Amino acid sequence: MAKEDFFTREENYSKWYNNIVLKAGLAENSAVRGCMVVKPYGYAIWEKMQAALDKMFKDTGHSNAYFPLFIPKSFLVKEADHVEGFAKECAVVTHYRLKKDTESGGIIVDDQARLEEELIVRPTSETIIWDTYSKWVQSYRDLPILINQWANVVRWEMRTRLFLRTTEFLWQEGHTAHETKDEAVNEAIQMLNVYTDFAENFMAIPVIKGLKSENERFAGAVETYCVEALMQDGKALQAGTSHFLGQNFAKAFDVKFNSREGKMEYVWATSWGVSTRLVGALIMAHSDDNGLVVPPKLAPIQVVIVPIYKSDEEREKVCEKARKIKNELQDKNISVKLDDRDTHKPGWKFNEYEFKGVPIRIAIGMRDLQNETVEVARRDTLEKAVYQQTDIVNKIEHLLEAIQDNLYQRALAFRENNTTKADTWEEFKNILQNQGGFVYAHWDGKAETEIKIKDETKATIRCIPFEQKGEPGKCIYSGEPSNQKVIFARAY
Amino acid sequence: MAKEDFFTREENYSKWYNNIVLKAGLAENSAVRGCMVVKPYGYAIWEKMQAALDKMFKDTGHSNAYFPLFIPKSFLVKEADHVEGFAKECAVVTHYRLKKDTESGGIIVDDQARLEEELIVRPTSETIIWDTYSKWVQSYRDLPILINQWANVVRWEMRTRLFLRTTEFLWQEGHTAHETKDEAVNEAIQMLNVYTDFAENFMAIPVIKGLKSENERFAGAVETYCVEALMQDGKALQAGTSHFLGQNFAKAFDVKFNSREGKMEYVWATSWGVSTRLVGALIMAHSDDNGLVVPPKLAPIQVVIVPIYKSDEEREKVCEKARKIKNELQDKNISVKLDDRDTHKPGWKFNEYEFKGVPIRIAIGMRDLQNETVEVARRDTLEKAVYQQTDIVNKIEHLLEAIQDNLYQRALAFRENNTTKADTWEEFKNILQNQGGFVYAHWDGKAETEIKIKDETKATIRCIPFEQKGEPGKCIYSGEPSNQKVIFARAY
Repeated sequence: MAKEDFFTREENYSKWYNNIVLKAGLAENSAVRGCMVVKPYGYAIWEKMQAALDKMFKDTGHSNAYFPLFIPKSFLVKEADHVEGFAKECAVVTHYRLKKDTESGGIIVDDQARLEEELIVRPTSETIIWDTYSKWVQSYRDLPILINQWANVVRWEMRTRLFLRTTEFLWQEGHTAHETKDEAVNEAIQMLNVYTDFAENFMAIPVIKGLKSENERFAGAVETYCVEALMQDGKALQAGTSHFLGQNFAKAFDVKFNSREGKMEYVWATSWGVSTRLVGALIMAHSDDNGLVVPPKLAPIQVVIVPIYKSDEEREKVCEKARKIKNELQDKNISVKLDDRDTHKPGWKFNEYEFKGVPIRIAIGMRDLQNETVEVARRDTLEKAVYQQTDIVNKIEHLLEAIQDNLYQRALAFRENNTTKADTWEEFKNILQNQGGFVYAHWDGKAETEIKIKDETKATIRCIPFEQKGEPGKCIYSGEPSNQKVIFARAY
Repeated sequence: MAKEDFFTREENYSKWYNNIVLKAGLAENSAVRGCMVVKPYGYAIWEKMQAALDKMFKDTGHSNAYFPLFIPKSFLVKEADHVEGFAKECAVVTHYRLKKDTESGGIIVDDQARLEEELIVRPTSETIIWDTYSKWVQSYRDLPILINQWANVVRWEMRTRLFLRTTEFLWQEGHTAHETKDEAVNEAIQMLNVYTDFAENFMAIPVIKGLKSENERFAGAVETYCVEALMQDGKALQAGTSHFLGQNFAKAFDVKFNSREGKMEYVWATSWGVSTRLVGALIMAHSDDNGLVVPPKLAPIQVVIVPIYKSDEEREKVCEKARKIKNELQDKNISVKLDDRDTHKPGWKFNEYEFKGVPIRIAIGMRDLQNETVEVARRDTLEKAVYQQTDIVNKIEHLLEAIQDNLYQRALAFRENNTTKADTWEEFKNILQNQGGFVYAHWDGKAETEIKIKDETKATIRCIPFEQKGEPGKCIYSGEPSNQKVIFARAY
């Protein structure tokens, strides 16, 4: 691509991001405001994410199910905080038919087909699911209910960005029902740990686990737990949330059960979710000025093989070897693409797969056939090396692991270099102004203080981290006493 | 369950079907008119279907992607037949915000947040996808585009039935774009063959491949191909359609490409889909008066093991053996559930898994430990047999294959016994009145004749079968000349 079409992270981070999304073929805007088209290569990354998460959910005892896209308006209203949080940004279905306009000849909404009660396109499914659970739960024997749903949801966002914030997005939402508070809290924490495992071991992104402050809590939750990741521009991105919902939705939908002690009690609830937003996080965490970088465990193509030749005769010989290596790698469940197209030059292909973030590129030419070698290039470091063909599958397997690990270590080092402590308000403002990143600071625990800090610095409390020594101090803003530090950052 | 709650197929086929869906835990109605909740066990069958189909789509070169849920009203209107087919049954989004009503205090639609152009919740995605393809295609080098989407769609049905006809349903929709007419027709036929393979080899349901008549054609297609299956009540069910769309959508959305000859030409299109309706077909094709029957290849649980014991000591011994067998079966990728719950008696468990259609039940008691045997019951025939434990995994693997095959053969025999030929109008009416099934008959090829036949008999043309000798004859209704027989049936 032409240089003028591309920006480095330094030049313009936001344009750099957008360019990668568009030019790596991940997604694009559609004709519908704020809704994206997830293109095949982007969707393939999402499928890899889904497969890994789905296995983790099932391994922890959850089943998938599917609930309606539409939520009756009266349901949304039942939980007071919930409606407050979602009413301002929802798509409302009011009619169920179009008709021909007798005057203009055009197609218009049929006024005769107005719904008695409007339907909301789900922004999240707590209400419709808890209405359903009310029919499923009578006794403690019906608990726990451990269900996950893969679905699309709609939130009418005013400012949208591909993957990071779109009107419609894809996600999973877990919704569980429990006998006791402890069991529900443990479930919420268990799923937070699943998200941590996924972020760190699949996405190669280190995360900090913690509790959300009241301002950032999910609408309808008692507590929201989250994992927070740091992007290369020093802004935070929430990489998963898990909510302890208490008995809020059970009360709103009257879901009671006959307990072991023979009493009628309200059910305890959790919900937890991650979305296609994680694809945005993945892009921003690892990619560089040469394009997308995808960790091997989520890469749709893990290895690309590019044959190099000058004649048809050479092509045949080189491709024969390439196919052999391809098959051997595939036998080990490595996803390989052999790009033997004659319509594009090797250099074009090198650029293409580099930009698309394929972790390993293998090139084979005539000299390699003679020497029994291949040229191996790794995407993370852009290093090239000549490998002997002997035991090549084993070497590639190890290299994939090394790349996965290196990406994680690199992201971890970045986060450590961009995590600071601020003891004074001046220091705090300076850091956010000049450097960004995670800032540990004391906070007095008040919602209004958090709002004032946000107004002055655009930074919010990302989380109250679980892992910390509760050392006492004074709030950087109000000077009031505080017994723990929290993490501030500007955030996506 | 109580006898009065259940009906045999003979007594009331429709209630029998509904009971199976509800009591096997497959799905239920939701609070939203016509929308169902797909429960975990029903969803697990759908997941098995998805996995098998998704692999077939990828093996034939297709990639998954995702397009917006919403379709601007002006898009739907662009293809004349298409809007005619879908405008009367669509959910229309008119607003994007709710607000508090200052008078009543309730939550109402915010009139200030009216969309300039209404959005339709997709009933199918040809229009939004072809709008997107218009940006992707410039040259023949950009073709073919071979994309599939897994998604939810909404058609505002007036009369709904769980799985068979619901306002919202889950499906896959393939949308492909090609250089030539031949290539597009071949693609449509290829996907029809994929659906045939899936119906026969996974669902164990024999199908007839053919062409739809004009009346039954997809709104916007040039030709619709379909596979038709026969249910146990003698009614037909369409088990997949594949459409050759010609250049209709390319013209509506102005999708032209620079051909190999250097001319600007319109792109050729196909679309093809199957939905959660297939779960309904699966239930109706195989189940019996004892409940659901699921073919092994789509069964969420292929084998259930029920331990039989009288004391804790016996329980321990029996369960140890059961676990061993379970692990051995799992090592062969057989999905096994060991139901070692102490809260339910073996008889209760036998009924439960029989009703849920688990293909094989293994029971193990103390005598089995002594004799090195297990009791094996197969769901399709309800036969029981005592097996020696030696080589048990191999025996179970073969039995699963035998059950899969038997279900197919049984369904095929049923279809053959319920397929007749009618040469006169009296004969035709008699068959449909008394016996149902597929009826081969001559038809004059006129849409109005088909409508009259439907009005008088409720039967429609299911397809013009591909496989037939084109013997000439006379239309059973009009007496006009016909050169081929078509298949009539009452249909779901």
